[in-house]
Amino acid sequence: MAEYRKLRERHGLYAMFCSPELAAEVTLQPVTAFEVDAAIIFSDILLPLQYMGVELEYTEHQGPVIRNPLRSAADVAAVRVPDPEADLGCVLEAIRLARAEIAGRVPLLGFAGAPFTLASYMIEGGSSSTCLWTKRMMHQEPDAWRRLMERLSATVSRFLLAQAQAGAQGLQLFDSWAGCLSPADYRDFVYPYSRQVFRALDGAGVPLIHFGTRNGDLAPLMRQAGGDVIGVDWRTELSDAWNRVGTDVAIQGNLDPAALLAPRPFLEARTRAILDQAGGRPGHIFNLGHGMLPSAPVEAVQILVDLVHTYRCPQPPTVA
Amino acid sequence: MAEYRKLRERHGLYAMFCSPELAAEVTLQPVTAFEVDAAIIFSDILLPLQYMGVELEYTEHQGPVIRNPLRSAADVAAVRVPDPEADLGCVLEAIRLARAEIAGRVPLLGFAGAPFTLASYMIEGGSSSTCLWTKRMMHQEPDAWRRLMERLSATVSRFLLAQAQAGAQGLQLFDSWAGCLSPADYRDFVYPYSRQVFRALDGAGVPLIHFGTRNGDLAPLMRQAGGDVIGVDWRTELSDAWNRVGTDVAIQGNLDPAALLAPRPFLEARTRAILDQAGGRPGHIFNLGHGMLPSAPVEAVQILVDLVHTYRCPQPPTVA
Repeated sequence: MAEYRKLRERHGLYAMFCSPELAAEVTLQPVTAFEVDAAIIFSDILLPLQYMGVELEYTEHQGPVIRNPLRSAADVAAVRVPDPEADLGCVLEAIRLARAEIAGRVPLLGFAGAPFTLASYMIEGGSSSTCLWTKRMMHQEPDAWRRLMERLSATVSRFLLAQAQAGAQGLQLFDSWAGCLSPADYRDFVYPYSRQVFRALDGAGVPLIHFGTRNGDLAPLMRQAGGDVIGVDWRTELSDAWNRVGTDVAIQGNLDPAALLAPRPFLEARTRAILDQAGGRPGHIFNLGHGMLPSAPVEAVQILVDLVHTYRCPQPPTVA
Repeated sequence: MAEYRKLRERHGLYAMFCSPELAAEVTLQPVTAFEVDAAIIFSDILLPLQYMGVELEYTEHQGPVIRNPLRSAADVAAVRVPDPEADLGCVLEAIRLARAEIAGRVPLLGFAGAPFTLASYMIEGGSSSTCLWTKRMMHQEPDAWRRLMERLSATVSRFLLAQAQAGAQGLQLFDSWAGCLSPADYRDFVYPYSRQVFRALDGAGVPLIHFGTRNGDLAPLMRQAGGDVIGVDWRTELSDAWNRVGTDVAIQGNLDPAALLAPRPFLEARTRAILDQAGGRPGHIFNLGHGMLPSAPVEAVQILVDLVHTYRCPQPPTVA
């Protein structure tokens, strides 16, 4: 969106995350422009890490980079649990402002990175397709791994509870990188900590979304860990996802973001196929399977939103 | 392996692919060192591309790079189908030499990249986690896409048949990148061409392995496309994979290569869990879920091979 790019050029990404006014403004942009059904606070899953003992920098070309990644038990021993209000108050204030400015038009979602995805970033120091350093700590230094994951689940739980108290009406836990793991590694090294987060959020009184990518085979374990809604990406058919997680839970997803770059008939066909699969299910949140691509045309986004809004299920939905 | 690294330092990777003597020597190294149950010819899936009209270069730091990636219908129109004997004779000769040197101790496998994975490389110009240029051609220029895939399936079919004629006793089709696709995109844009390859190989008279990664949800379609054995990576439990592809087909896989860097008890436990799941099945080829990591210790590989060889199924296998 041009108005977003203008703000970003003027202020830079990091300043926008830290300014409640700018973050609230960006949060409202898609609500106003496209009339989507929910807003999600403009922020970044990595923000808490800078208060945990690593040096996080948002670079122009490499994206976020950590200069002192955690590689040893000693590194992990120095990791702190941030205080949401003192350290991440700008995010909470952005939620308060955005909530007031939305004025009830749509619900506002808060979010955080899941313990595994944050741990990967702290250990790898940046993006990694293999997560080898992360698996190395998991397998070779399981005590250090467990200590790090305990601190991350405490951090994430407190931060999300604070977001709900600040006015977030739904919370999303992003485990974007868990898809590099075998189900066995997820079960042994990740599940207990994501479970802790969801237990801590039991009393938050808002719907909880558990997001993953490349997670078709992790979805049943993610469902056990928690969440009222399980996210899956485009690699898994929604009908298969429901077969795995059970039809008593909602699913979020799962259009390939690349479909927004395709010709309109293709975009429409793929979108309808997703909505057809969700017809008659107990709950479905239409969404992309991952983040919006920077090259997605604004017009395609509008076409997509309108299509989802005007879609009518071909058969009357059956009640489960 | 030290003896492999020594050869590679002296000759460079590309020269090793092109020298039948060196390629045969490297092919035999793991057979001699670890007593594995099969040999696979030392080669690279990208070698045919340089005879199809793109400039392929093996760089020290970026790996293989294509300087003139295919981005338009005109680029695709210039793509040629190589002649296996004239253009790729060094690979065929390496197979003949390796076969003679193995002298019947273990079977020798040939291989090729699948049309989609090769097309991705030709279009992206290098590795890509998103395959956005590839999807762009698929969705926006479907005629160019189909022309490219036709030429690739002809290339791969001829090359694999020639490998069987040269002495390969099994053939593996690597669709390593198909995991970036939705099942719908795979079905519409990839399946027909992989199917063509397997049909062409029907008369080859050797077992066919269809390999993928991040392919838990593509496995049923890959099975339909062809192959006596379907490969899945560590992201999918073998029991789930069999549930999806049917128990009348063999599966290859699926240890996370990172397990070779883990402490021995962990490596052993994860390996046994895979073998336990395969117990009593009609066919299982134990393998890593993807290629060997350069940092895997030689000792761990030996431990793994010995463990697989000495493993006995806890229950007597049931006949399907």
